[in-house]
Amino acid sequence: MRDGHAYLNRNAQHLANRMIEDSDRLGINYSRGSTGEHMIDAGASCQGSVDAGLRIVEICMGGLGTVSATLGAGKWPYVVNVRSSQPVLACLASQYAGWNLSHEKYFAMGSGPARSLARVEPLFDQILYREPDAESAVVVLETATPPPAAIVEKVSKATGFTPEKLTFIFAPTQSLTGAVQIVGRVLEVAMHKAHDLKFPLGDIVDGAGRAPIPAPHPDFLKAMGRTNDAIIYGGTVQLFVRGSSAAARRLAEQLPSHTSRDHGQPFADIFKKFKGDFYAIDPHLFSPAEVIVTAIETGDTFRNGAIHDAMLEQSLG
Amino acid sequence: MRDGHAYLNRNAQHLANRMIEDSDRLGINYSRGSTGEHMIDAGASCQGSVDAGLRIVEICMGGLGTVSATLGAGKWPYVVNVRSSQPVLACLASQYAGWNLSHEKYFAMGSGPARSLARVEPLFDQILYREPDAESAVVVLETATPPPAAIVEKVSKATGFTPEKLTFIFAPTQSLTGAVQIVGRVLEVAMHKAHDLKFPLGDIVDGAGRAPIPAPHPDFLKAMGRTNDAIIYGGTVQLFVRGSSAAARRLAEQLPSHTSRDHGQPFADIFKKFKGDFYAIDPHLFSPAEVIVTAIETGDTFRNGAIHDAMLEQSLG
Amino acid sequence: MRDGHAYLNRNAQHLANRMIEDSDRLGINYSRGSTGEHMIDAGASCQGSVDAGLRIVEICMGGLGTVSATLGAGKWPYVVNVRSSQPVLACLASQYAGWNLSHEKYFAMGSGPARSLARVEPLFDQILYREPDAESAVVVLETATPPPAAIVEKVSKATGFTPEKLTFIFAPTQSLTGAVQIVGRVLEVAMHKAHDLKFPLGDIVDGAGRAPIPAPHPDFLKAMGRTNDAIIYGGTVQLFVRGSSAAARRLAEQLPSHTSRDHGQPFADIFKKFKGDFYAIDPHLFSPAEVIVTAIETGDTFRNGAIHDAMLEQSLG
Repeated sequence: MRDGHAYLNRNAQHLANRMIEDSDRLGINYSRGSTGEHMIDAGASCQGSVDAGLRIVEICMGGLGTVSATLGAGKWPYVVNVRSSQPVLACLASQYAGWNLSHEKYFAMGSGPARSLARVEPLFDQILYREPDAESAVVVLETATPPPAAIVEKVSKATGFTPEKLTFIFAPTQSLTGAVQIVGRVLEVAMHKAHDLKFPLGDIVDGAGRAPIPAPHPDFLKAMGRTNDAIIYGGTVQLFVRGSSAAARRLAEQLPSHTSRDHGQPFADIFKKFKGDFYAIDPHLFSPAEVIVTAIETGDTFRNGAIHDAMLEQSLG
Repeated sequence: MRDGHAYLNRNAQHLANRMIEDSDRLGINYSRGSTGEHMIDAGASCQGSVDAGLRIVEICMGGLGTVSATLGAGKWPYVVNVRSSQPVLACLASQYAGWNLSHEKYFAMGSGPARSLARVEPLFDQILYREPDAESAVVVLETATPPPAAIVEKVSKATGFTPEKLTFIFAPTQSLTGAVQIVGRVLEVAMHKAHDLKFPLGDIVDGAGRAPIPAPHPDFLKAMGRTNDAIIYGGTVQLFVRGSSAAARRLAEQLPSHTSRDHGQPFADIFKKFKGDFYAIDPHLFSPAEVIVTAIETGDTFRNGAIHDAMLEQSLG
Repeated sequence: MRDGHAYLNRNAQHLANRMIEDSDRLGINYSRGSTGEHMIDAGASCQGSVDAGLRIVEICMGGLGTVSATLGAGKWPYVVNVRSSQPVLACLASQYAGWNLSHEKYFAMGSGPARSLARVEPLFDQILYREPDAESAVVVLETATPPPAAIVEKVSKATGFTPEKLTFIFAPTQSLTGAVQIVGRVLEVAMHKAHDLKFPLGDIVDGAGRAPIPAPHPDFLKAMGRTNDAIIYGGTVQLFVRGSSAAARRLAEQLPSHTSRDHGQPFADIFKKFKGDFYAIDPHLFSPAEVIVTAIETGDTFRNGAIHDAMLEQSLG
């Protein structure tokens, strides 16, 4: 992949500081934690908002994504649009929620550019990128509870920053903020599945995606189901890749969610079927409904999958 | 509603100053009035533009809205998109043209964040918001004529600012600027009708809307008709509300324009039918054609209404 | 036309400087040429990107356009959107690739705001605009090779700036950057054809356009064919014009690409048919597939042309 000196945490810190300034209009709460860490509650003890969700998507992508929400036509007209000309850095080095930040009864997967400093996930074996001169780190958590002291300490150690240099942003799955920031992962899930499929990351040079904003739901399981279904049954992604047409075709054949064994039911039902064991679900389910892969070195474009209206209807209601 | 310290006039002043800097490229004229007030003619004695119209929408929403125009597909492909995570402040405390600024033969309804300082409208009984430390005030007028001295004085007294601290922006209904800034009210008319329907304002937490940009028309009545019809027969709005599903369903049932007694004719014809008595028209006509209401605390979404192609055809031509 | 003091080169220089700062994330290379000129390779010896292409469109339009890319629905969902409330300045005084900067075996047509300083093209007889106090000049070239010293000198003489005040941005037709920056000309080709049709430029006051981003192709001829076809068979433009309805109707009748003698084949085939003689091709072919012309002084709107799916299929594959 390109050895670009992009500034994921620096960009994210700038965006996080603007969120704090705008906390009133975003419906979020800012506070300092017990060890001085910066804490942005973007939807747990406060209302949150579509705007807060979009800001979090930008932060999750380390400032290397372009994010918007637009009301279009159709049954689910309000969609989040994301695109990035640095999809590996924006989505995998930063946005992917791959850092286990659970502790005792606290469960959370860390997302955001702090991951690229901690580098504790195997994924970073294939991402050579190192941010030069990062001065702080930003973590995003899909949770209703602020991280406990032990987790703040863990992040502090892993990133090498004292807590005052750390910013934690969290919002529950059930909040409006959560709904927006999760469907803003539509490009990221495609990137991550491409990685699982062993497609060479360095060959993915550009990407864009869209997914509808589902209604938040007070029940955690339903809320999680809807945000997943918005992508799995309602998401579209276009990737621009280097390499052969054969490789691009294979990627398009394998990338959409319908290639998964578990495709065809609302996510919440699948989750129940596996008795809540997230890791029993076929990881290949987590991908957009519809995929376009363009091989820029050969000029061929491959399409696969389709928006699944019936499933959207059943899940998003 | 959220007690957010958003800065409507401060934001609007910043945006108005940028309009003045960019007056050449926006096709607008800036001058100082006889008592020192700042006057932006955005389409009366000058050409105006789509850009000027969009800037005015941003100003009308006190900087708390996101506004864009995009050429899509369909017969009326050029649409204005607005959204706000502070729809009560952006649309009702600011954008709604509810302040009577008529004087003798001069007729104008004031819009923009100065309204939230003047607080002379009954609507403000239900909007507790007070802008802290406002240092100036911005008024937007849908008119071809700058406000007379008596109106400048009235605004000065009501807001507590000397005229040098006041900025008036005006553009006639017939101008391109006017067409854009009026259809940019698609979310605002939904908010205002929700208020008329006694839906608790504090329960509306987020919203988005879209409406086509109609061709301006040199005839005032036709121009006014078209901008209204673009919303009434061509507008779509999605609101995110707190409270029960029953309340959200009721709102969706009552909100679209087709629930009005006067729905089904081009607005100009309705206006003529009532012999130009604006206040004889059913106020419930002023609302988008199509409405989606999402109850964020229960997860239910309710839809009602539809784009009315035949009426758009008849009116927008 | 409006005698606006818009700052094409000043805006473009500001945007070019930001490109240089962001060169890593844009996948581009910045260097200084042998006489001190600034050289941005946006896709020849580097990867380039969608973002780089969009930045170039903004620069080409002298900062007077609004440019975005969004993934929508349909077979070619990834589209570039452009609009400008100064379409004559943005598209004709700046974006149009009308300045012959060829030298010996080097072939290139110069685009960008430097053209408005050089004023060597007959087109400038009808564009009175002069940028006040330009302090540098920006040239954009659709080519795989940096301009030779003789061309740098030519631009230096024509603009009156020493090479250190000149910025050259180039990207080949075959690059992702190139694909994006070329389809970003959808509004410009409509403006230029309107000029060819002798429609008074000063009467075109606002405009917007969209066209799909085609897959880049390694073969120059196919890449050129696809970018042209994306506009000729896939582009839509709306113009807002002053003057009579008859003039607007005539413009709509003549403007779409289907009015051309050479319409109906992929561009690459037409090019081959004329044995690579670009100037033997009917210049009226270079225009959007679908056109909407709105006469703002009479309120009439005229439509003509349509997206040509079969040709898009054949060309963009």
